[in-house]
Amino acid sequence: MSSNKQSRKSAPVSDKAAAVQAGAPLKRRTAPSPALRKKKGNGRLYAAILAGGIGSRFWPLSRETTPKQLLKVVGDESLLKSTIKRLSPLIPADRVLIVTNARQAEIIRLHLSYEDARALSPGYVIEPAGKNTAAAIALAAFDLYRKDPEAVMAVLPADHVIEDGRPFRTALKAALKAARDGHLVTFGIVPDRPETGYGYIKASSRAFRKIDSFGVRTVEKFVEKPDIRRARQYLKQGGYYWNSGIFIWKASRILEEIKVHLPETFESLEKCVEPQELAAAYKGLRDISIDHGILEKASGVVVIPANFPWSDMGSWSSFGEILKPDSEGNIVRGRVVDIGSRNSVIFGSDRALATIGLKDMIIVDTPDATLVCPKERAQEVKEVVGVLKKKGFIEHQEHRTVQRPWGTYTVLENGEGYKIKKIRVEPGKRLSLQMHHHRSEHWVVISGVARVQRGEEIVDIALNQSTYIPRGVRHRLENAGETPLEIIEVQNGEYVEEEDIVRFEDDFQRR
Amino acid sequence: MSSNKQSRKSAPVSDKAAAVQAGAPLKRRTAPSPALRKKKGNGRLYAAILAGGIGSRFWPLSRETTPKQLLKVVGDESLLKSTIKRLSPLIPADRVLIVTNARQAEIIRLHLSYEDARALSPGYVIEPAGKNTAAAIALAAFDLYRKDPEAVMAVLPADHVIEDGRPFRTALKAALKAARDGHLVTFGIVPDRPETGYGYIKASSRAFRKIDSFGVRTVEKFVEKPDIRRARQYLKQGGYYWNSGIFIWKASRILEEIKVHLPETFESLEKCVEPQELAAAYKGLRDISIDHGILEKASGVVVIPANFPWSDMGSWSSFGEILKPDSEGNIVRGRVVDIGSRNSVIFGSDRALATIGLKDMIIVDTPDATLVCPKERAQEVKEVVGVLKKKGFIEHQEHRTVQRPWGTYTVLENGEGYKIKKIRVEPGKRLSLQMHHHRSEHWVVISGVARVQRGEEIVDIALNQSTYIPRGVRHRLENAGETPLEIIEVQNGEYVEEEDIVRFEDDFQRR
Repeated sequence: MSSNKQSRKSAPVSDKAAAVQAGAPLKRRTAPSPALRKKKGNGRLYAAILAGGIGSRFWPLSRETTPKQLLKVVGDESLLKSTIKRLSPLIPADRVLIVTNARQAEIIRLHLSYEDARALSPGYVIEPAGKNTAAAIALAAFDLYRKDPEAVMAVLPADHVIEDGRPFRTALKAALKAARDGHLVTFGIVPDRPETGYGYIKASSRAFRKIDSFGVRTVEKFVEKPDIRRARQYLKQGGYYWNSGIFIWKASRILEEIKVHLPETFESLEKCVEPQELAAAYKGLRDISIDHGILEKASGVVVIPANFPWSDMGSWSSFGEILKPDSEGNIVRGRVVDIGSRNSVIFGSDRALATIGLKDMIIVDTPDATLVCPKERAQEVKEVVGVLKKKGFIEHQEHRTVQRPWGTYTVLENGEGYKIKKIRVEPGKRLSLQMHHHRSEHWVVISGVARVQRGEEIVDIALNQSTYIPRGVRHRLENAGETPLEIIEVQNGEYVEEEDIVRFEDDFQRR
Repeated sequence: MSSNKQSRKSAPVSDKAAAVQAGAPLKRRTAPSPALRKKKGNGRLYAAILAGGIGSRFWPLSRETTPKQLLKVVGDESLLKSTIKRLSPLIPADRVLIVTNARQAEIIRLHLSYEDARALSPGYVIEPAGKNTAAAIALAAFDLYRKDPEAVMAVLPADHVIEDGRPFRTALKAALKAARDGHLVTFGIVPDRPETGYGYIKASSRAFRKIDSFGVRTVEKFVEKPDIRRARQYLKQGGYYWNSGIFIWKASRILEEIKVHLPETFESLEKCVEPQELAAAYKGLRDISIDHGILEKASGVVVIPANFPWSDMGSWSSFGEILKPDSEGNIVRGRVVDIGSRNSVIFGSDRALATIGLKDMIIVDTPDATLVCPKERAQEVKEVVGVLKKKGFIEHQEHRTVQRPWGTYTVLENGEGYKIKKIRVEPGKRLSLQMHHHRSEHWVVISGVARVQRGEEIVDIALNQSTYIPRGVRHRLENAGETPLEIIEVQNGEYVEEEDIVRFEDDFQRR
């Protein structure tokens, strides 16, 4: 993990930063100087992927248990998996950190394990609470710095869309060089339209340096999302770039800046080494973005203008940037019958969805929930999710079909005293050895063969056969065959929620 | 059924019409004459309710097996049941005829039997095909005339909304008097807005007669649905009334007119007494409305302007006329979360439906299908249903929950080689004694107690117990208890459609 000694000694920034690890405060803020920029670092590149959000603007596709970064909206890979794979030629998964909370980390870990068990096993930095990007980045920077004082970290959102990885990596390599020299590097995306949905970075009119084919410019200021008049002006004037939220810097350098500009954050996190200390420390942290908290104030902040195709997928209305619309401007999926709609996003499911004469609308239909809203109000989907939550609607939390490491289950019906599930177990997988206090279960096999442990007995149940698991009896369902196993489970009992499960053994280390 | 001899003899119209029954042609068209008007008929009043349509503009609530007239859109009674009940103080159900096709008649018969087994048992006139209103009315008129040559028939659509029955019946009584005197009476609704969705009746400027509180006017012409400019002019000018599609006349009188203006229709139907003759006769009939085919040409056509609250419920956009919108102009039902919509119809179901910032939109969500369209294009829902049908979508045909005389079943999942149903049997009811060639069935009781006949054996299966019906075994499910019985049925087999059923005995005379 650690870098070579040569580079460590030659970099004064690192020496200072080394003190952080030992618990001693950093002594001074490193001003950006030509001398600094010329120092050649050689730190290895790590990634800190910020994955704490739900992305509730993508409800009803996103749910609390299926955050936006796990959606397969583009192609057949989740946004998070694409993010990790995009980095992999430069940053292997063992140098990737996912920064998120404990619940999401578990969801992500399982998700990546279904997707590709070996190749994508990142590390995790667990935040005890969501405190915006400054805190998340500080926590990740401490983690990396402690492992590797020379570490250069790329900070990336988990849920952005960058369709072609190559130009992105080319830009990343250039940014790495600038970061090794001590710069706080931001990626600015060259705008191709007067977008009002992004913040902008105003750069110096000239590049002060060229790295590979990229001009490195000083950041003059960060600009909030503009109105359309201003956005047009920025586009015309030039020198304004979309703030991609992707940053590259040495862990030691950003820690120095955090020490200066968010000293409480620095001190609180510096003291914490054990996870149990973190929860208390986090409570007092400022809820502020890295842009506001650090980058607007720090020196040595530069921008590398890049023009790889990028979208932050902020809301349903941004779909038109990513998926190619048809000749009427529509993006249509699923079992949809449409008559004469234009410029609309129409996402159906297996249900029948009929649309007539829509203009600039968003319709998203899922098995248990439907959204209808004009594109221009797509931001308000977040509010809808708030209302759903307040009203106690389960549909903000879970999908009807829930992924598990062994397969999926789909709730077909949830009634008073009973629940009907379709359970699909992939070949070679098995559920935990478990028991329920409050319900009995009837299982009918509708596809494949089920190996059932019921108390001490183990039997194979074939298509069109059934078995009964009384309450209180230890049981386990396994697919020992070569084809997927599907069963219908009828649960009966006064309490039929997921929480009523006692696990004795589990292939997936769940409790 | 037959009227008294006195009236029969005193009415020359009836004497002529009596010849119809004997197969002899009517000799002359009865011109409206003051003499005729003064003839006091005394024929009994019958109703012919036209119920052949699906009302596909109300998809996804209406389906082929749940036509619009069976929907409970207003209050808790179907439109058809309301129509029958509204008439009942004047016309008991045994003088009501439902004019429809065989399939719909069966659906309606079952529907009325769930709703109220005794009081609402109308007769049926079965059309072998849909041939528009002239043919349907001719067929009903022959049927009534043959039973009662003095019969006066009120012709009514099955699917209109008339919220208060009293003013309607008051107008009907006046119309009956005019009809007994030989008039062909139409109801014209006094317009309260420049409606472009209805046809109009232009009446003579003065009433030529007063019956009760109603002025009887001569019809000058029938006017097609106008544009908004014309509709405004009609409203301002006065003397224009909405054509309600409700007519009252002697069966003999309308038959005379049909003989003159649609002689082929008259002759074809005159010859048919047995149902088997009808199919061939119907093939050649003109597909024309009673308005175009007869009323525009006949003499003695009068209008009684009435102002009972009426709507033909032509499409989803007419909901605002019937259901009271909220302060934002919305009509909202079901599990809906809305932010800032206006003037929209938002019908949710048990699923979550979220709407944001809609204006003049219609959203109708059902468990298996959703419609989204602007109000102004509500007419095109009919086309959507056509496309669904062409594409083989089941959702144009059936609801997820299907009503049966013994209760309901809900298809929870329909997969390759299996089907999952929730079956609810009302207390005291039982399904037919049946057998399936292609599927076996697992039953798990989730509520109540099931009495199960399986081969020769009869057993009671309680909550949380299950049984298995192998293919080819005669079986019957019964709710012998006092509370509703609910079971989950898992069907397994290479063919799991409803058609695979052999019935040996049935409480509801189904085959």
